[in-house]
Order: sequence, then C-alpha cells, then structure tokens
Amino acid sequence: MKRGADRAVYDREAIRSILDAGIIAHVGAATEDGPIVLPMVYGVRHDELLLHGSVANAMMRAGRGFDVCVTVTIVDGLVVARTPLHNSMNYRSVVVRGTATVIAGTDEKAAALQVINDHIAPIWDTARPPSDIDLKQTMVLTMPLTESSAKVRDGDPIDEPEDLELDHWAGVVPLVTAWGAPYPAADLRDGVAMPAAVEALGGTNAHPLDDSV
Amino acid sequence: MKRGADRAVYDREAIRSILDAGIIAHVGAATEDGPIVLPMVYGVRHDELLLHGSVANAMMRAGRGFDVCVTVTIVDGLVVARTPLHNSMNYRSVVVRGTATVIAGTDEKAAALQVINDHIAPIWDTARPPSDIDLKQTMVLTMPLTESSAKVRDGDPIDEPEDLELDHWAGVVPLVTAWGAPYPAADLRDGVAMPAAVEALGGTNAHPLDDSV
Repeated sequence: MKRGADRAVYDREAIRSILDAGIIAHVGAATEDGPIVLPMVYGVRHDELLLHGSVANAMMRAGRGFDVCVTVTIVDGLVVARTPLHNSMNYRSVVVRGTATVIAGTDEKAAALQVINDHIAPIWDTARPPSDIDLKQTMVLTMPLTESSAKVRDGDPIDEPEDLELDHWAGVVPLVTAWGAPYPAADLRDGVAMPAAVEALGGTNAHPLDDSV
Repeated sequence: MKRGADRAVYDREAIRSILDAGIIAHVGAATEDGPIVLPMVYGVRHDELLLHGSVANAMMRAGRGFDVCVTVTIVDGLVVARTPLHNSMNYRSVVVRGTATVIAGTDEKAAALQVINDHIAPIWDTARPPSDIDLKQTMVLTMPLTESSAKVRDGDPIDEPEDLELDHWAGVVPLVTAWGAPYPAADLRDGVAMPAAVEALGGTNAHPLDDSV
C-alpha cells in the first residue's frame, strides 16, 4: 500500500467502507444565490446513498434541481512536515456526484429512513415507529453511487529530500473520534432501559480504520 | 439559552468560536458538471476566511468563478429520541457564502498561509520557512465573513408530548474528538525535538465546547 501521498481510490468496497465509517455528509447544490453546502445525516444501501429531511427541503426549494454533490470526510490526523507547505491531514474522503430523486411510497420511505436512522447504530427497532402521517411529512432522497470516488491520505509527511537533514521535527498527531458514555434525557421516565445498541455505541471509536482503503 | 431545537446564530463571536474550533471545511462550488464539494484546510483572520491550495486550484479550473460556500461542521453527539424521526445530531455549524479572491504578493501570501497553517496548532515558526519559489507556486484564497451564519443544536431530544409516557429510551451519546499522542516520522533524524506546540496538542480535545454559542 502506498502511504503518504494522497491516493485516489475507485474500489467499490473501499468507498463503501468510508461511507460506512462517516458520521455526516456535506451536501452541495447550486442555487440562484450561488453554491450552498449543508451538513446532513445519510445512509448507504447497496449502490444507493440516502439523504433525509428538512435540510434537503430547503436546498431543493432554493436549488435548480436535484443535482447534488455529497462529500463524506473522516479526518485521521495532522501531518507535520519539516516545512509548512508540506503539512497535511491524514483523511479518508468520498465524493458522490449525481441526481437525487425523491423516494415515493410509504413503505419504501420507511425502509430508506430506517437505513439512514441506523447508519450510526441500529436504534430504529427499539423506538416508536413513525406513523403514516409522520412518513407523509418526511422527504427522503436517493442518489446512485455510480459517480463516486474516494481520496485517502495516511502515513508520514513527505518532505523534500534536502529537508531531511534539517533540525525540524516531522510526524503525525492522530485524531481520534469516539462516542462517549450515553446519558438519559431529563424527561426520561424512571425504569426505561437504554437500548443495547445505544449502550454498545458508548466508548467505541466513531471512525474505525478499515484496512481495505 | 434555548436548548434542544436547532438554533440559527448570527452573533459574530459565536460564529468565530465555531470556525476556530473546526478542523476542516467543506468547500462547495458550481461547475459545468454540477456542484462539487471538497474538504479543505482553512484559517480565520479578522473578518476573513482563508483557503489554501491545490484543491482550490482544481475547483477553480473546473468552476464558473470564485463563488463558493464554505461550511464547517462539528458534530457533538447523537440525539436518540423516542421515535426515529425526532432523532438528531448535536452539532455546531457555520456556513459562509461569497466570492473568494486570490491573495497576490509574496508577503501577504506567506502571512495568510501562516494563519491557515497555525489554525490547529502554531507550528509555522518551528518549521523551515517556505522559499519564494514555494510561495509563488502556492495559491491562497480569501473570502469575507460578511455573509456567514451558524446553526447550533445541543441538549436533549425534543419528543412529542404523548411519546413521553412510552417505554422508549431517549438521551444523548456524546461524540468526543481528541488529538492522540504525536509520533515521529520514520525518516526523522535522531535528536530532533518535538515542537512544544505539537506536544501540547497531543491529548487535547480537538473540538472544545464554547459557551458563547
């Protein structure tokens, strides 16, 4: 595996593993007032990226259509080189471009919402299911993963050969993102147990490194 | 302070504190092939957002100009409600829209690059300074913070009143992002000391919560 330099990755499994490990997406659209980029939750299913909600509503009202770019980035560390212009970040990033379309049909919508909801932890099944009215008021978008690519950087800084002799430090400061201990809402009734999926999430790394990239 | 619901924040100090705490930006531009969103490092100075580099080059070659949207998001936790459609994230996010312009002049460029470089930790002064040739080959962009706004969500889930009596759990799983222990590059010469700013970064939270938001 080539380390250090930014590497473009087109392998479907590698792209999927980054999308699985990401927490939020940044979704971009063109509007009459210029480009807009908003953070959104998302889900992945087969060769589909699923987007949810009110933010999409606002974006689609403002936008020229459903052409979007969805970018998911995981920062893994600060790369300190011997000279600032060689400083970098270690990261994993996926860019998906394409046309997002609305999912119609209550059952299809519920299935897609479960995928988005369970992206971080499977907490759909232990909650009160949405009503048909809830589902009617919710918009869900799907876009194909056809036009997707990833970029990955890891490992040490790449300095100029002549800089290696200098007395400047070089190395990496890892960035670790982890879920802390879950705590109950102030209005939670006594005796309601924490779902196993929530309990299991606490204390785990949010962005596990995957060897496939 | 109103907690729970998404709040729009226009206070300059609150916006600045989020930009200071963020690690990377997602920069969006319109291109002939649709919108594009790419992760980039950035810096903040007075009322300016500074962007660097090769990614901007690619974006500007592809783009219709310098109109960009720069979004910085910090995720603070997963909000688990009693029903999935009320699940949410706790987050702090800033959206800056406007026109990015190229900084000309070697000294101005070096000063701006130092702000970007030192965004996470002040490591410019302990490194080998860039040469004039380095600086000539590097592009730096500035955009005003005039058109910027923030959104913040924190605290507990907001459930429907009738759901509070149900036996479904509700609460928050915090997300903590922290810098780990720095490690030297494999090609680092013996006896080169780690800069104090790098050492100080290790073990600190990357996204400190700020009371001003």
